[in-house]
Amino acid sequence: MSDSRAPTWWQREDLNYQNGNLHFAGHEVNGLAKRHGTPTFFYSAKRLTDNVQRLHTALQKAGLKDRYRVLFAMKANRFAPLLTHLKGTGLVGIDACSPNEAEHALSCGFRPQDISFTNTSLSRNDYDRLNRFDGISMNCDSLTCIRKWGEMGRGRNIGIRINPAIGLGRADNDKLQYSGANTTKFGIYREQFAEAIALAKQYDLTIAKIHFHTGCGYLTPQLDYWEGIIKECLWFVDQVKDTVKVVNVGGGLGVPHVAFDQPLDLDAWAQVLARHFLTRNVTIEVEPGDYLVKDSGILLLSVNTVELKRDKTFVGVNAGFNIALEPAVYNLPFQPLPATERTGRKQRVTIAGHINEALDIFYSDIELSPLQEADTLVLINAGAYSTSMASNHCMRGEFKEFLLY
Amino acid sequence: MSDSRAPTWWQREDLNYQNGNLHFAGHEVNGLAKRHGTPTFFYSAKRLTDNVQRLHTALQKAGLKDRYRVLFAMKANRFAPLLTHLKGTGLVGIDACSPNEAEHALSCGFRPQDISFTNTSLSRNDYDRLNRFDGISMNCDSLTCIRKWGEMGRGRNIGIRINPAIGLGRADNDKLQYSGANTTKFGIYREQFAEAIALAKQYDLTIAKIHFHTGCGYLTPQLDYWEGIIKECLWFVDQVKDTVKVVNVGGGLGVPHVAFDQPLDLDAWAQVLARHFLTRNVTIEVEPGDYLVKDSGILLLSVNTVELKRDKTFVGVNAGFNIALEPAVYNLPFQPLPATERTGRKQRVTIAGHINEALDIFYSDIELSPLQEADTLVLINAGAYSTSMASNHCMRGEFKEFLLY
Repeated sequence: MSDSRAPTWWQREDLNYQNGNLHFAGHEVNGLAKRHGTPTFFYSAKRLTDNVQRLHTALQKAGLKDRYRVLFAMKANRFAPLLTHLKGTGLVGIDACSPNEAEHALSCGFRPQDISFTNTSLSRNDYDRLNRFDGISMNCDSLTCIRKWGEMGRGRNIGIRINPAIGLGRADNDKLQYSGANTTKFGIYREQFAEAIALAKQYDLTIAKIHFHTGCGYLTPQLDYWEGIIKECLWFVDQVKDTVKVVNVGGGLGVPHVAFDQPLDLDAWAQVLARHFLTRNVTIEVEPGDYLVKDSGILLLSVNTVELKRDKTFVGVNAGFNIALEPAVYNLPFQPLPATERTGRKQRVTIAGHINEALDIFYSDIELSPLQEADTLVLINAGAYSTSMASNHCMRGEFKEFLLY
Repeated sequence: MSDSRAPTWWQREDLNYQNGNLHFAGHEVNGLAKRHGTPTFFYSAKRLTDNVQRLHTALQKAGLKDRYRVLFAMKANRFAPLLTHLKGTGLVGIDACSPNEAEHALSCGFRPQDISFTNTSLSRNDYDRLNRFDGISMNCDSLTCIRKWGEMGRGRNIGIRINPAIGLGRADNDKLQYSGANTTKFGIYREQFAEAIALAKQYDLTIAKIHFHTGCGYLTPQLDYWEGIIKECLWFVDQVKDTVKVVNVGGGLGVPHVAFDQPLDLDAWAQVLARHFLTRNVTIEVEPGDYLVKDSGILLLSVNTVELKRDKTFVGVNAGFNIALEPAVYNLPFQPLPATERTGRKQRVTIAGHINEALDIFYSDIELSPLQEADTLVLINAGAYSTSMASNHCMRGEFKEFLLY
């Protein structure tokens, strides 16, 4: 893994310097900036396909053959061309979490039966709308949901989102705890599971799926712990073993954000699934968001200022955390790369956004080749949870998006 | 201050229960929900006026007479009817931080000379647009800004945003540190101030204003510390005493969020200003955001679910942190109030949003009168940094806004 710790740990076939100029997805980044302006997000269609394909290959290799389904967590990125491209691969369905999302997926070519729906705290209007999407796979996140969905249509198959009371987020990040020691709002716990089964029976609903989502951003070092969580979840699966056909293991597959992150070993990951589910007669669903789109997307920015403040050199750019908030809000750094590498001694800089808020920092204290006003700067790993969570804070919400072939 | 620690610390003339039903700004909350639906923000025009008037009264009482100006930090809330109402009071100008904000303020009836502009990392296009707003008051946040603004028009008055390298945020909140021990991106430090003066001279610019913003959400207990910061800033003021006409002390005036917060003693606050600036021949500008609008706004939600999960009762509502993010992202709680107080034993509940993210909790573990599905729930203090930072995350971005007279 020594390569992944190098300063160029992010480098890959479709993202690298050629004669000092950064290239992405077959395009020179400076040319993209010149043509389309900044701030602009670019997504690589090929990288999207590669990410999907890599997941499939690992699942196939582990022996799961036709007993799995990959669903894209569209809350990570709902850019219509990107969704349609994923649909076009024929290899992914959709994980949706609101009626608007489900409808947007339909507008991009997906069918109701391609969609797995999981959400918490649904309104009456939400149920009415979902009920129109015949064939959608509903995962009930609460006793209330079983009751209401049952009232609207007896005799259906349902999934149940369970909560194993154990989970993992990225280290040091309490904002990403989905199912840890503290009781969270998600899913049905062991304590209420018998009631869930009884309620399903009351409405003649068949529990055909067990769903869980127990963390996010996990990489190879977390796989052992993740397997421990899977084992906890098997208790629920075995409670309904006569009816369960599908186990949805959620998303959470991470990508490296910094040099010392090791990439997720997909074969080891798929083997965990094979170990526990090959002997059980179930289909596996997995719902990656980050893993499919995060490293397919880059954000191009322009440098407005390079200035020493007291003892620190700040590089001020023309966008803020409101259009790419993972670094500021979730402590997930986006490696910055100058579009052109200048010769000369590297400079220690902090990349700052243009929003008047203290947290609006993209990267603190990093050695980069010298930057000047009007330079183009790239942030990598910006393909997930950037535009989908973007706001118009300070009326600085403008950006463009392009899918590159 | 014992009243402010009571369970009904939030109660005031325009926000209280009458016969068990919550009233706000002369309206029964259930009636508002019935007429307009949820999620909906309501703002009290009278409360806005009262908040502005209270500030003026305190500044007058402290002897500042016509030597002050109140500017609303519109990044807190840019709802056009609210801005126009504030303009109509004749008592406030605008603190804007982007060209779009400045233009939006103009669209609501403000004039360029009503606007004080402060921002970091401006683009060439930003400067071009600002240069068209003849009479706008420009506060340069960097040496770069002095140079570029000077290049566009010699011989003007400018303000300089300085950084005293000391600041305060709300206790325990490192996301709100604007000018603390760590070097931040904001303003010009002592180390570079001589260069700033020389640069202004080079472009024949007169430094007519010193601007600082050194924290946010401060209340009475922080006033001593805040005065210490003001004293640090006087060093900068005195460096340019021959030309400086205005000192802008930024915003940061807080409002109580929980029962043990004591409201800001405005008289004590104004006396700090009087103490340091009455003998200096300057006008004071203050740029409150929260203080003017936060407690003027409430958010009406509907209860979708009330359910025990393991050991905790969750009240699931029909909105998420994406339209009101201060509780989730900045740890600033919004006190929840049922629209109707039911009799019977209070219930310990956690108010959860409908977004599939772990951080989407509005309030943890609070005793409330019993809630049921379809009830209306109010979150108070939702008038600032809610809609202005709202996103369409999970395509759950819908809300309405109303100004109530």
